[in-house]
Amino acid sequence: MISETDAPSSTTSADASSAPGASPAGRPDYGRVTGPAGPGDTALAAGLQKVLDGHWAQAREHTRAAMTPDMLNPIGLSMEEHREHVLAQLKRLAESGMPDRGFPVEDGGQGDTGGVLTSFEMLGHLDLSVMVKAGVQWGLFGGAIANLGNAETRAKYLPDVMSLDLLGCFAMTELGQGSDVQNLETTATFDPETGEFVVHSPTPSSEKAYIGNAGRDGRLAAVFAQLITPGEDGEDVGHGVHCLLVPIRDASGEAMPGVTLTDHGHKGGLLGVDNGRILFDHVRVPRQALLDRFGAVDAEGNYSSPIDSVGARFFTMLGTLIRGRVSVGAASGATARTALATAVRYGLVRRQFDHPDTGKGIPLLEYREHQRRLMPRVARAYAYACAQNAIIAELDEFERDPDAFDTVRRREMEAHAAGIKATVSGFANDAISEARLACGGAGYMSENRLTEMRKDCDVFSTFEGDNVVLTQLVGKELLGAYAAEFGDMDQRETVSFALNTVAEVVQEKTRASTLWQKLIDSVTDREHTDILDRGNQLELLVDREEHLLETVARRLRKAQDSDDGSAAFKVFNSAQDHLLHTGRAHMDSWVFARFAEAVDACEDPEAKEVLGMLCDLYVLDIVEHDKGWFLEHNRLTTERTKAATAARNRLCTKLAGRARTLVDAFAIPEFVFDIPMLTDGGVDDPVEAAAGVEGWTKRGLE
Amino acid sequence: MISETDAPSSTTSADASSAPGASPAGRPDYGRVTGPAGPGDTALAAGLQKVLDGHWAQAREHTRAAMTPDMLNPIGLSMEEHREHVLAQLKRLAESGMPDRGFPVEDGGQGDTGGVLTSFEMLGHLDLSVMVKAGVQWGLFGGAIANLGNAETRAKYLPDVMSLDLLGCFAMTELGQGSDVQNLETTATFDPETGEFVVHSPTPSSEKAYIGNAGRDGRLAAVFAQLITPGEDGEDVGHGVHCLLVPIRDASGEAMPGVTLTDHGHKGGLLGVDNGRILFDHVRVPRQALLDRFGAVDAEGNYSSPIDSVGARFFTMLGTLIRGRVSVGAASGATARTALATAVRYGLVRRQFDHPDTGKGIPLLEYREHQRRLMPRVARAYAYACAQNAIIAELDEFERDPDAFDTVRRREMEAHAAGIKATVSGFANDAISEARLACGGAGYMSENRLTEMRKDCDVFSTFEGDNVVLTQLVGKELLGAYAAEFGDMDQRETVSFALNTVAEVVQEKTRASTLWQKLIDSVTDREHTDILDRGNQLELLVDREEHLLETVARRLRKAQDSDDGSAAFKVFNSAQDHLLHTGRAHMDSWVFARFAEAVDACEDPEAKEVLGMLCDLYVLDIVEHDKGWFLEHNRLTTERTKAATAARNRLCTKLAGRARTLVDAFAIPEFVFDIPMLTDGGVDDPVEAAAGVEGWTKRGLE
Repeated sequence: MISETDAPSSTTSADASSAPGASPAGRPDYGRVTGPAGPGDTALAAGLQKVLDGHWAQAREHTRAAMTPDMLNPIGLSMEEHREHVLAQLKRLAESGMPDRGFPVEDGGQGDTGGVLTSFEMLGHLDLSVMVKAGVQWGLFGGAIANLGNAETRAKYLPDVMSLDLLGCFAMTELGQGSDVQNLETTATFDPETGEFVVHSPTPSSEKAYIGNAGRDGRLAAVFAQLITPGEDGEDVGHGVHCLLVPIRDASGEAMPGVTLTDHGHKGGLLGVDNGRILFDHVRVPRQALLDRFGAVDAEGNYSSPIDSVGARFFTMLGTLIRGRVSVGAASGATARTALATAVRYGLVRRQFDHPDTGKGIPLLEYREHQRRLMPRVARAYAYACAQNAIIAELDEFERDPDAFDTVRRREMEAHAAGIKATVSGFANDAISEARLACGGAGYMSENRLTEMRKDCDVFSTFEGDNVVLTQLVGKELLGAYAAEFGDMDQRETVSFALNTVAEVVQEKTRASTLWQKLIDSVTDREHTDILDRGNQLELLVDREEHLLETVARRLRKAQDSDDGSAAFKVFNSAQDHLLHTGRAHMDSWVFARFAEAVDACEDPEAKEVLGMLCDLYVLDIVEHDKGWFLEHNRLTTERTKAATAARNRLCTKLAGRARTLVDAFAIPEFVFDIPMLTDGGVDDPVEAAAGVEGWTKRGLE
Repeated sequence: MISETDAPSSTTSADASSAPGASPAGRPDYGRVTGPAGPGDTALAAGLQKVLDGHWAQAREHTRAAMTPDMLNPIGLSMEEHREHVLAQLKRLAESGMPDRGFPVEDGGQGDTGGVLTSFEMLGHLDLSVMVKAGVQWGLFGGAIANLGNAETRAKYLPDVMSLDLLGCFAMTELGQGSDVQNLETTATFDPETGEFVVHSPTPSSEKAYIGNAGRDGRLAAVFAQLITPGEDGEDVGHGVHCLLVPIRDASGEAMPGVTLTDHGHKGGLLGVDNGRILFDHVRVPRQALLDRFGAVDAEGNYSSPIDSVGARFFTMLGTLIRGRVSVGAASGATARTALATAVRYGLVRRQFDHPDTGKGIPLLEYREHQRRLMPRVARAYAYACAQNAIIAELDEFERDPDAFDTVRRREMEAHAAGIKATVSGFANDAISEARLACGGAGYMSENRLTEMRKDCDVFSTFEGDNVVLTQLVGKELLGAYAAEFGDMDQRETVSFALNTVAEVVQEKTRASTLWQKLIDSVTDREHTDILDRGNQLELLVDREEHLLETVARRLRKAQDSDDGSAAFKVFNSAQDHLLHTGRAHMDSWVFARFAEAVDACEDPEAKEVLGMLCDLYVLDIVEHDKGWFLEHNRLTTERTKAATAARNRLCTKLAGRARTLVDAFAIPEFVFDIPMLTDGGVDDPVEAAAGVEGWTKRGLE
């Protein structure tokens, strides 16, 4: 074990003391628990990094090596300049061949889903505008063609998509339909006389909105629309949402006839991405424009699909979104790590108020409150990085071998992709905000990047699925109602399903896992009173989830006998907060399990011990935030919650003693930290700090 | 009482049903609890507005009438264009004579502190850049001259300050000293040979930083520096921090000799304010440059002051900051109200997912979670507006008649100014973020203003005192240690004072208040189980504060016997979270009391009833967030906390039924809501909505 005060021992390693000019008597004597400002314990950092890097460590290292300072989010450019800059970065990425990795081998790619998602995640350390525009181009637009197009269509377009000779849009969201994709209004009506589809925006609310690449660069759009064919009796027959490729701009950049394009202009952030709106006025495209892998229309206007169920078809069509959600979670997690690493470094070199004995300034991270602001978030950053690696691995396996996934496993993966997106993007915005506040006035200067991260990351809570809607989706999946109707909000269905749900099914599955058994077997304290016992922690989190699930199912069951949609809505609506709590609780325990697995698999003993402390802090932070629930439901006594609060404080202090090492393990390129506030006159002299000297000499100008 | 379902009755008032084209059968039948999208109940809104407008209703109305759309934060300007725009706005304000109101009558002003603070607060509805630059010019720079200068100096400068012929800076913060003002490093050394002061930045960390108006427009700076005079034995004698007027730019905008000016350039927001850094290299200014009301140096270099104690002198010098803090809290509160009103309006016209029976889209604010996101924040906005009015009234009284304030009362006012600044600016950033999220993709478009509010308001949590430091200051004031050493962080002093503190002193004072007696007398439920009983609510909040205070005092007492500064720091540091909790708890009960007073004074019965519900929701929201504490300390049983959660949900729904009226009462000029997302194709047709028609006709384009 590491005691509270011996923590710095590892940070005053041989590296520092053997550095030229090091002073052996540099450290003040007031029991500083944080280490000096120089780099942390490199061996420990390497051990931790191995865990965070995960299965795609090689792709990560490859990307890391290719990162250069000019890829950083530029400060102070005009919107158009920023767009130019980001487009140039995309060209560079295209030339590097990185995006090709994500496309199927038969389309000229490498079929390396895990690798490409990991590489895209790394862009989160540098410039989210680049990450988002790349995600739109290759992940969403390219992904739609690759997943939904037939061989001919894929061969026709994908090479130009990969090389960036053809920029495109993923035109799903409409002004009036953000979350309710199944009910979007744009129509694609087959005209048998000409053999064309007529793509049309029938209402103002059906205008495609917030579409990346639509503001300036996109030439072709993958448009999601209600597919309509003429029926036998002359009446229109709807087949649900399908995707068609519709040209929106000619080579000179002018809008195509019948297409009205509107630039969204300035946004809260992501100024390098050109979002826009698209309105279609009876735009005709050939029959081949339909991406018809899962729903085709022949020359006579007959519709056919390999998937009978409309719901299942819809789900399959939207498969592209899973990758998008995983990617959004991953990149926002990377941004959060960058922000936390920045704030931790600042907290070690910035001092405020003099110590009563030494008269020397006290580093910010020495203060308990500062530790409490940053360290639990560092712990969560570790937990989410491990969970993110797990969901990437799951998706990679699915894309390599879909047949290995039965419906239940596929749905679970989908729910976890939704849940991790909501969890991590929400966390990222919180962590970046706190990091910015923890850096005071300096944190507000754009040159120090934190405000820019916050602006860009903001919309990650909204796009690729609103976080509230996604969390609800996790809750509904737990209720088992999350079946064919992806993203659907049919409360009646949910309510009716809840009748038949036996919560134990979910419970038994969790309890049957290998990890569960292993952890439960390892429980040392059979009274379940030690909150630092890994098995008890899992029990605590899973038990909360189960209880919430059982009780919400019981509440929804009340609507059983009602054929009245209003009554059913009322029941559902009044339990909405309960359902969301269930979804969050599930993600907490799911993330915990993934983190615990990673800790368990770590072979470096010192790294394992530190990871164990981070895992403890992650759990204690959850308990702290939901303390009321644990007490109300007699899951914890007041003595135990008080002990948990005290333990959380102690862990914050302990881990603050290794803070620099913990964030060094994020392995973010050093140039990211070449920002004024880490070296200017407001902080410790970087030369002295690098040499391991502790004293704060006020450098005279004279 | 208003039942859950009859809430909309008042919103379908005669106004709406008598409007031309209104449909009597327009409302759907699924028990919608929110009202239609048009304006709310104007009579009720007027009653509520009267309470919010407070004592300076006339100044508010005057400012409101003068507000025009061109005063809104412009979108998409370059930094220099935004600066130009804001400077022009300041000129306009100067011409209006509004800033003069805040200056003393003898200096050509009107001595109307309350009025001018209220007017500045209103700028928070439009553009925080204007508010901040105005605050720098007239509040801080002008305030320093008015408060610290002698009659000659005031006569020399103030007319030009008021007219904006002389733009200036308030140069207090340094790169290395943000919160620890007492230890700032800039020196002003008297040279008896020339009769000048030499102003100097001795170290890189002593550079003045983040200074408003220093980036471009400021010509004269009120510089805070350690005043040094030659002692009898030839040694320098320090007299603590004083303020001097130092020219930094000549008329052509060039830096004065010895002055190095650096533009901070892009910031996280407030692009219209030109912040910069100032470095002094032995800059000589005449003896008259010292603002010498509270500390003068004669021609021979002899120092004299009407205030003996260095601490008390420092406090007096920094009096300007009180007004700044009150003003920052007020303006951020106004911004929060704007953001919440925007989100509430959007939640009433934006629909998502169809109702199972009607097939019509359900307005966002109909969803429980949406109600839970917005309504408790609306309740807090009311509470903070009332508290803000109270602190403005207190400061107004103080500035009119300082002698009416003994030391205790003055310190209290100062602590509450600090506390309200931290509380409201923190709340504002939370509320704006939540409002932006509640508006989905539309909320991220700059044209809808929410992201711009968030960017600008961000730094309100940091400047004019970091929120953590200010909250700690409240805690220390409660401990009684907050004496002469304004803003000081001397832990030893705090600890030593805690020995002598009798917590009962504070308690008795609270309990002796008229409000307390009145509320306690009004308690209907002597078992103290009804959390909706106003007297019980006060008891609950004050009891929490007292318990936290007693226990933190006991913890700090442990350091009593130690002469060891390190030990004292350790004790203090490990109780820091406890002390901050105490500070927050005090602000919660102080705000509650001010809100309850305002409710109590309301003479309009319907407004009073609604305010009562808002006050309940404010308390229930506090209980929800600190539920763990109330349970851990046996202040509430689990039955009561569960009942509190349920009551909070019910109140959210009830108040959502009047949401539009509640935000109409903020009386924000209607042009502020002339933003695309409230009228574009994604929401209810504004024409129909204005006519009170409920149905959502998808307007065809054809």
